[in-house]
Amino acid sequence: MKILIVGGNGTIGKKVSGHIGQNHEVVIAGRSSGDVTVDMADSGSIEAMFKTVGPVDAIVAIAGEAKWAPFDQMSEEDFYIGLKSKLMGQVNLVRIGQAFLTPGGSFTLTTGILADDPVDMTTSAAMVNGALHSFAKAVALELKDGQRINVVSPGLVEDAVEIYADYFPGHNPILMPKVINGYVKSILGKGGQVIRMYDNS
Amino acid sequence: MKILIVGGNGTIGKKVSGHIGQNHEVVIAGRSSGDVTVDMADSGSIEAMFKTVGPVDAIVAIAGEAKWAPFDQMSEEDFYIGLKSKLMGQVNLVRIGQAFLTPGGSFTLTTGILADDPVDMTTSAAMVNGALHSFAKAVALELKDGQRINVVSPGLVEDAVEIYADYFPGHNPILMPKVINGYVKSILGKGGQVIRMYDNS
Repeated sequence: MKILIVGGNGTIGKKVSGHIGQNHEVVIAGRSSGDVTVDMADSGSIEAMFKTVGPVDAIVAIAGEAKWAPFDQMSEEDFYIGLKSKLMGQVNLVRIGQAFLTPGGSFTLTTGILADDPVDMTTSAAMVNGALHSFAKAVALELKDGQRINVVSPGLVEDAVEIYADYFPGHNPILMPKVINGYVKSILGKGGQVIRMYDNS
Repeated sequence: MKILIVGGNGTIGKKVSGHIGQNHEVVIAGRSSGDVTVDMADSGSIEAMFKTVGPVDAIVAIAGEAKWAPFDQMSEEDFYIGLKSKLMGQVNLVRIGQAFLTPGGSFTLTTGILADDPVDMTTSAAMVNGALHSFAKAVALELKDGQRINVVSPGLVEDAVEIYADYFPGHNPILMPKVINGYVKSILGKGGQVIRMYDNS
């Protein structure tokens, strides 16, 4: 299989790329590095990326940003950072990517636990994640030729604990092998769903 | 109580306004009619509305639009109709409205069953509804002075059956007294949550 991983050099992305790359051809797209560069906030850039990469058997997004700030300091424009990048970036990846994804191929988007269990200062990030969960359910009704879509929604991931632990009081980290398995399930499995990987136990 | 109902002349809004207005002072805001006019897609218009209306004890949104179309006919701009109007319109209502809502006062936003159980051609509408569910959970962590937020998420509402029944095959209509009660619970109750009113029984 030929698999495009947008954000394949990021914190989660490099682990997923490394694992999947053992048995499959991985093409890494990144903002400033990788086999091809792409700006998730620019649909023209996404289109150019697909024209460069050509047909693929799986399209994975582990990319896109949203602003974290106290709600009473969030301007209208601040919200649009997440809407344009993490939300519409991933929507455009599906919208444009349909034509480049082989029959039965999979889309894998990335969100996170904030959609269901937000923490302080995440009005924008939570919103974007929740939007993608509902989008995926809706678009799954319309994808053609057996194309599938999953959303991987991890809790606080192990490799990001150092940066994010203070923002997620009491959240149990999700170990990287489990996070990787979410992507493996999406790409190599047959289903389409929101794959929640939370540890509240 | 003085209650601002944005969209108070719409299909759902007029029933809610009529019921609540029996015992409270209701100020209706609408796109082209009402006590005050407002364009939900324009934060400047929302700010002007609040300056005209002044302090209120409850802010209710039953307004905002999103485009319904097959996914493969949805342009990037088509998605922004819903993001600017129904999503950011309601977010801006909270963002700007905080300063005009009395302590303990409530925000009531409106979404719908598409967030959880979408139908054909609703990639944009489902996304917007899911975004608002997660936004409400996140912003509830940050509201001050006892301000509360609920989201009323009805299934196919009785008064819209004639227009929407064909789009919602097999969906049981939610009777108007139940729909109204969702808003009453939000405004007169003390809680803050996503109030789902679905009938899958």
